[in-house]
Amino acid sequence: MDAVRPARDWIGQRLSRFTDRVETLDEGGMPALYAEVPGTGRRKLLLYQHYDVQPVDPIELWDSDPFKPAERDGRIIARGVADDKADVMARIHALETLKGLGEIPVTLRFLVEGEEEIGSKTFEKIAHKHADKLRADGCLWESGSSFDDSGRPTLQFGCRGLLYVQLRVKLLGYDQHSGFASIYPSAPAYLIEALASLRDQEMNIRIDGFYERVVEPTDADRQMMARIDPEIEKRKKLVGFERLMRDTAPEHVIEQLLFTPTCNIAGITTGYQGPGSKTVLPAEASAKLDFRLVPDQDPEEILARLRKHLDARGFEKVEIVSHDGEKPARSDPNSAVARTVIDCVKELYGEPVLWPFMPATGPMHPVVSDLGVPTVLPVGVGRPDNRIHAPNENIHAADYINTIRLMCRVWERFGAG
Amino acid sequence: MDAVRPARDWIGQRLSRFTDRVETLDEGGMPALYAEVPGTGRRKLLLYQHYDVQPVDPIELWDSDPFKPAERDGRIIARGVADDKADVMARIHALETLKGLGEIPVTLRFLVEGEEEIGSKTFEKIAHKHADKLRADGCLWESGSSFDDSGRPTLQFGCRGLLYVQLRVKLLGYDQHSGFASIYPSAPAYLIEALASLRDQEMNIRIDGFYERVVEPTDADRQMMARIDPEIEKRKKLVGFERLMRDTAPEHVIEQLLFTPTCNIAGITTGYQGPGSKTVLPAEASAKLDFRLVPDQDPEEILARLRKHLDARGFEKVEIVSHDGEKPARSDPNSAVARTVIDCVKELYGEPVLWPFMPATGPMHPVVSDLGVPTVLPVGVGRPDNRIHAPNENIHAADYINTIRLMCRVWERFGAG
Repeated sequence: MDAVRPARDWIGQRLSRFTDRVETLDEGGMPALYAEVPGTGRRKLLLYQHYDVQPVDPIELWDSDPFKPAERDGRIIARGVADDKADVMARIHALETLKGLGEIPVTLRFLVEGEEEIGSKTFEKIAHKHADKLRADGCLWESGSSFDDSGRPTLQFGCRGLLYVQLRVKLLGYDQHSGFASIYPSAPAYLIEALASLRDQEMNIRIDGFYERVVEPTDADRQMMARIDPEIEKRKKLVGFERLMRDTAPEHVIEQLLFTPTCNIAGITTGYQGPGSKTVLPAEASAKLDFRLVPDQDPEEILARLRKHLDARGFEKVEIVSHDGEKPARSDPNSAVARTVIDCVKELYGEPVLWPFMPATGPMHPVVSDLGVPTVLPVGVGRPDNRIHAPNENIHAADYINTIRLMCRVWERFGAG
Repeated sequence: MDAVRPARDWIGQRLSRFTDRVETLDEGGMPALYAEVPGTGRRKLLLYQHYDVQPVDPIELWDSDPFKPAERDGRIIARGVADDKADVMARIHALETLKGLGEIPVTLRFLVEGEEEIGSKTFEKIAHKHADKLRADGCLWESGSSFDDSGRPTLQFGCRGLLYVQLRVKLLGYDQHSGFASIYPSAPAYLIEALASLRDQEMNIRIDGFYERVVEPTDADRQMMARIDPEIEKRKKLVGFERLMRDTAPEHVIEQLLFTPTCNIAGITTGYQGPGSKTVLPAEASAKLDFRLVPDQDPEEILARLRKHLDARGFEKVEIVSHDGEKPARSDPNSAVARTVIDCVKELYGEPVLWPFMPATGPMHPVVSDLGVPTVLPVGVGRPDNRIHAPNENIHAADYINTIRLMCRVWERFGAG
C-alpha cells in the first residue's frame, strides 16, 4: 500500500492546480483519486485511469532500473510507463495545455484508481457508492492496444472479464527427502493432474458448463473483426512463437483472440527452484490461474464451477486460497463519445481499426452496464512491442505527444456537442 | 565452489595431525579429500563421508541461522549437521580418542567427497583413477537412517540409484499479457501435460520399458524386510500425511519404500510466483525431477527412455537441460565388515534392524561393484525427525557421542580380524 500511495498523492496535487474538487474515494481497498474539473459546456466526460502497476518480477530481465525511466532509441522504458502512467500524464498535460489557452468546454471527471492490476477489488463498490460523481455523457477509458503492427490506430468498445484464482495443495507437514516418494503422496503430482484436467493444449476448457453463457459474435462484430489485420508474421517475429495455439487460419485469429475464453496458468511454484539439484518431495504446490471471460460469462459463476469440477474429479484437496473477478463489458460503438473519438482519430492518425472489445480486462462493467455510461478506449501509446506486464515495459515518446493532442481535440469536440 | 571448500580444508588440516598422507583427489569436479591413517593390523577400512550439504532453501522456514549451530532440547540444529557432518566429525573424534589411548589396529582410509548432494558427478572417476587408495577390506559408508521411530538401530547394505533431470519448455520469446492466452501456446500447460504423462498419483510410471531391469526382492530380502516395523502411525504423526500413496497395507510398506522406483517432482517453476496476482502468459516453464532407481536399473538407460517417451508422446519441446545419475548398489550383509558392525551394534545398542539397502542414494556403486569393497551403512545419528534436506535439520547430541563409541569399537574389532 505504501508503495503506490505516493503516486496517488502526486496526481492529486497536480490536479488540485485546476480544481478544488479533488478527493479520495475509499471503500476499503486502495482508495481511488477523484477530481472534477468544471467545463463551460453542458456535457460531462469521465476519464478512467489507474495509478498502480504490475510487479517488476522477474527483475533480472530488466536492462535498467524499472523505476528510473530510461530513454533509448526514442523510447521511454519503465514499469508502468505504458500501463497506465502515459494515460494519466497525457490527460493531465492535455488539461494543462487547454487551460493555458483558455477554458475547456467539457466537464472532466478524473477517476484514477489504485487496484486495477490486482482485479479492481473495490471499484464496483466505488462506482455504485459514488455514482453521482462518475455518471457522465461518455467515458474515455485508459487506452488499450492503440496501434497494430502496421501502425494503424485502433479503438475498442469494451473488454473481457477475468477470474483470478490462487490454488494450493498441501499433502505433507513439511518437505521430505525424495526417497520417500515411493510411499508418500506428492503435492506437485496432485496439482499438475488437477491443472491438466482443466484444459488441454488447445485451450479447450473441461469445466462443466464453462461455455454456457458464451455469446456468439454478432454480424456487426464479425464485420468489425473482418477489417482487423491479425498481422501473424509480424507477431511471430516479435513474440517468438513457432505456431499459434490452434494453428489457426489468419482469418479466424481475431475472433479466437476475442471470443475464446481462457484458463491461463500464470504461475506454478513448488519444491526446489534454485540452481543445481535438490532431491526433495515437496510438501505443497501452488498455482495462479487467470480465466479471461467473454460476454456474458460471470466470474462468480465460473468460480463455483471450478470448485465443483475439482471436487467431482477427485481434486478436493486443491484449495482455492484466493480469488478475484471482473465481469466482461461491451459498449455501443455508435454512441456520441464513440463517434467523436472515431472522428478525431481519423483526422489525426487516419482511419481507425475498430474492435468490438479488447482481449484484456478492465473494471468497465460497473461504468458501462451499471451506470450506463457509453465508453470507448481511445488511442494512446499502446503498441504490440510495449512489453506491458513484462520486463522492459516501454513507450515511444512520439506516441505520448500525440496522445496529448488527441485528448485536447476530443475534449473540445465532445464539449461542443 | 567457494562456499564448500573451507569445509574440505578444515577437515584436511584436522586429519593432518595424525598423518602426512592427506591429499585432494581432483578429477574435474569438486575435489575429494583423501587421508590414510596407518594402523598396526593388516586390514584396511575405507571410510566414506561428504563435506557438501543441501541448499538451505526455503530459508524462511528455519527457526535459526542454518550455518550457526543452535542447541535446543538436547538437539543441535544446523544445515548438514545430520547429513553428513556428524559422520565426518564423529570419525575424526574417534580417531583422536583411539590415538590418545595408543595405536589403532586398522588402517583407515578417509574419503570425504564434495559432490554427494549434487549427484557425485566425478566420484566414479575418482574411484576408478585412485582405486589403489580406495581399495580396502571393508567400507563404512556415511550412516543412513540409523534408528527407527521406536529407537531400534538399523543397518543397510546398499542404496538406490538416482537419475536427476532438469526440464525446460520455452514456447515464446518473452512473457506475454495473459489476454494472448487465447491464441499463443502455453509453456506451463505443455510442461504439466508432459509431467502428467510420466506418472500417476500412485507412482505408476508410464515410460516404456522403465521397469524392465527391476529385480524382485529375494527371499533373503523378504525375510529382512519382514522384521522391519514400518511404524506407519508414528510416521503419520511426524510427517503429517493423511494416507500413504497407495493406501498400502502395513506389511507391504517397506517393500514399496525400497523396491518402488520413483519419478519424483522435486520442483516446478514458471510465471509469476510472488504475492498477489499477475496476469501473465509465461514464456517458459521448468521442472526438476528425480528418479530413484532400484537394482538393476541404470540411470543412462532411463534417461534415454525418458527422452524417447517425451518425443513419442508429442512433448519433443521439453528440453532436458541437465542430468546426473548414480547406479543402485547392493553389498553382502554377511561380509566380514558387515558382521563386525552387526556385532558391535548389538553390544552397544541392542539387536539391529537390517535393511537390504536404503531408500536413498549414495555413490556406492563404484566402491561396492567396481572396486568390490564390502560396504555397510553403520549406525550414526540418523533418526526420522532429523529433517535432512529440509529446514531445521537436526541431530540428538547423545546420538553423536554414541556414534564415536561405535566407531572406536568397530575399528578395534575389525582391525583385530
